[in-house]
Amino acid sequence: MEEIDGIFQAADAMKEILQRDIRKVPTLRGKTIITLFHESSTRTRVSFEQAGKILSADVINVSSSGSSVEKGESLYNTALTLQAMNADVVIMRHPHSGAPNFLARHLGLSVINAGDGGHAHPTQGLLDLYTIRNHFGNIAGLKVTIVGDILYSRVARSNLWGLTRMGAHVVLCAPPTLMPIDFTSGCHRVEGHPFSSVVIETNVDKAIQGADVVMPLRLQLERQEAGHLPTLREYSRTYGISAPRLALAKPGALVMHPGPMNEGVEIDSVVAHGVQSVIEEQVRNGVAIRMALLYGITSPIDEQGTGR
Amino acid sequence: MEEIDGIFQAADAMKEILQRDIRKVPTLRGKTIITLFHESSTRTRVSFEQAGKILSADVINVSSSGSSVEKGESLYNTALTLQAMNADVVIMRHPHSGAPNFLARHLGLSVINAGDGGHAHPTQGLLDLYTIRNHFGNIAGLKVTIVGDILYSRVARSNLWGLTRMGAHVVLCAPPTLMPIDFTSGCHRVEGHPFSSVVIETNVDKAIQGADVVMPLRLQLERQEAGHLPTLREYSRTYGISAPRLALAKPGALVMHPGPMNEGVEIDSVVAHGVQSVIEEQVRNGVAIRMALLYGITSPIDEQGTGR
Amino acid sequence: MEEIDGIFQAADAMKEILQRDIRKVPTLRGKTIITLFHESSTRTRVSFEQAGKILSADVINVSSSGSSVEKGESLYNTALTLQAMNADVVIMRHPHSGAPNFLARHLGLSVINAGDGGHAHPTQGLLDLYTIRNHFGNIAGLKVTIVGDILYSRVARSNLWGLTRMGAHVVLCAPPTLMPIDFTSGCHRVEGHPFSSVVIETNVDKAIQGADVVMPLRLQLERQEAGHLPTLREYSRTYGISAPRLALAKPGALVMHPGPMNEGVEIDSVVAHGVQSVIEEQVRNGVAIRMALLYGITSPIDEQGTGR
Repeated sequence: MEEIDGIFQAADAMKEILQRDIRKVPTLRGKTIITLFHESSTRTRVSFEQAGKILSADVINVSSSGSSVEKGESLYNTALTLQAMNADVVIMRHPHSGAPNFLARHLGLSVINAGDGGHAHPTQGLLDLYTIRNHFGNIAGLKVTIVGDILYSRVARSNLWGLTRMGAHVVLCAPPTLMPIDFTSGCHRVEGHPFSSVVIETNVDKAIQGADVVMPLRLQLERQEAGHLPTLREYSRTYGISAPRLALAKPGALVMHPGPMNEGVEIDSVVAHGVQSVIEEQVRNGVAIRMALLYGITSPIDEQGTGR
Repeated sequence: MEEIDGIFQAADAMKEILQRDIRKVPTLRGKTIITLFHESSTRTRVSFEQAGKILSADVINVSSSGSSVEKGESLYNTALTLQAMNADVVIMRHPHSGAPNFLARHLGLSVINAGDGGHAHPTQGLLDLYTIRNHFGNIAGLKVTIVGDILYSRVARSNLWGLTRMGAHVVLCAPPTLMPIDFTSGCHRVEGHPFSSVVIETNVDKAIQGADVVMPLRLQLERQEAGHLPTLREYSRTYGISAPRLALAKPGALVMHPGPMNEGVEIDSVVAHGVQSVIEEQVRNGVAIRMALLYGITSPIDEQGTGR
Repeated sequence: MEEIDGIFQAADAMKEILQRDIRKVPTLRGKTIITLFHESSTRTRVSFEQAGKILSADVINVSSSGSSVEKGESLYNTALTLQAMNADVVIMRHPHSGAPNFLARHLGLSVINAGDGGHAHPTQGLLDLYTIRNHFGNIAGLKVTIVGDILYSRVARSNLWGLTRMGAHVVLCAPPTLMPIDFTSGCHRVEGHPFSSVVIETNVDKAIQGADVVMPLRLQLERQEAGHLPTLREYSRTYGISAPRLALAKPGALVMHPGPMNEGVEIDSVVAHGVQSVIEEQVRNGVAIRMALLYGITSPIDEQGTGR
């Protein structure tokens, strides 16, 4: 928790830099950041690239197509190679859970997880926490409702981890086919924080009732093909966040979305672009949070283990 | 017209920078340029990237493959995201006419159209005008003959717009299948400039006769498959710019081509690389024009609306 | 030979820069390096990009997918275009032997060959020589055994050229189907250096006996499909570098590999990551060698023709 607060304080300083006319500080001059993305992504890669460049780092992009990966090189050897080329930080997205952690444990270089399989997307979790904290002042005691594809969502996992750590009451709502089978209905206490709890609720209206934050998740369209859903239309009607449904939350409740959105599926356009939406602010905060993490890697904050 | 002249004056200053041993000025330091290309392109993207980097901007490339676009995100939301990440300029190529204009109207950020469908390719038009102006001193009164795929060519459209605006006599020549059906033969007056005119001429030898500038367009090889042409060989014989055909133009007439060329189809190699060819100069001027536009975005020229 | 020594001296200076906390020197500020890769590669492209950025050059990446190449533009015209955009150096990988040489002869710009077909990969050859020289002090008189796909390997060709030039005894070992048919068994004298020799040896154990350096080559998995090999398993058993096989070399012999490795095929993991392996050092030296070459292009060394 203190570690997270430290990142938030650094992010506050970074936000100030982002508001300058000339957004450039020499902090990471002469350092090399490599983005190693084994899954496609615009927003996360661009956000990190932007963060690194504003801090004056050299950023080199590697995507799996056109890379040694195609030639059968092991991930471990790819990372050894990047390390030998003096990469200071490798920012990694990988379809397999645990891949960034594996590298971080075996290599001397810093690895930032930019999303690994269905496991975690910690920088997304942090920017979500940061956005909530900036609006409410604190996170403890807030009711945060996450709706959608809990089963496959690394965003949900990272938010669940962070939110409970910070003392929030988290409500998870999904169609039964998209909820992990070991998540049983009802309220669960969370270890590590005296006030937080996790509630599993299949009725979306009940889930949203009185929420401070409503966070629909992106519905991967592949889920329907895989038989998890009857139709997108039905999903939208049953779980999509519409204006009337949002009205069940607390007045002024925040609407958040990790993006990219399927407007009209998990969220209605009027909600996505409405006054309660902080979706663009999440993106803006994402750059600040990633700057804070990259900064932390060359500063004392790092020794507490941030983002590794 | 005054706006175009303003861009040309800025481009003159940029050309001087390009001739320096160290091609780097701090003009756009701390600014972020994002290239968002939904169609493949080397020359335009590299030209903008080079222009941005010489001006010390951070340039981040996004192509549609590997981007959120593949995940079904709307163009509008993609752009909102890039805006929230503090992009100062988005340089956009898109297969749909009007896409850059749509974004420029709805977003606070600057959008430069790097080619949209069959509609326009304004920076190519500007660099063509600039190249002509640099050779002849002015554009008004010149005869400029554009030969080829007028129907689908955004380059032709942007040149037609700019050339007539600047007072040139434009001759458009194409096989009937590659000429817009509402373009009827004969000479047409142009509104907006007292001297300019547009002539539709299907006979290529007549079209070239006495021309100051001859500009064959790239023949998209897909056109043949689509039934617009009998064979490439016949197209080359009937419309290709050969040395004897070029001799019909004024002595010293310029040969221009927007690239990439199909040598031996719309233009013979001896013409493409001959003394009258200014094709490489067009490329060189392209960097200067794009620097001028990027510069204009953070300077008073911008308030007159350049390049937006 | 003097030219190679000059590059090594420059690389020594570059290695010192790579050990600094802030790895950035202004040598190539305001210069543009374009990587033009018509074949996929991570390590070589990233190594050059890293080298260029540490020297403060602007690096622009062009890959063949998404480029004008797809639109049928000739290589010559692509290069003319890059030249007109003020590229100072084009770093080129191409599937056709001789393509970089062709451009270097016809254009005013500097071209560095980053691998052309089965022909040559000179910067890999240089970094291999440099790594050997750093360990043994000199190269003349050393026995260097190269094992594997000699027929298709540009790495083998560039090493053969460089090693014999520097006075090494080179032993080439391959299955008969992966050895050029005009290479006949036995010992061959080499013109240009009084001491060097090339031995063709099909028995891998004999080939390795007493070697100072053992260099297995990457086995392209396509070779098996093409009928050059019965099975990978048999290749691994017959030609793979295992610990017992390595024991036949001189004590302390170096194990080198150009990467990416197929661990368990041409090299066992225990050897690849063992104490005799200098594979990561090769990667590290690659950045220094490429910095030295890029540096040479704007300095007097260049006039002696380095890397062009």
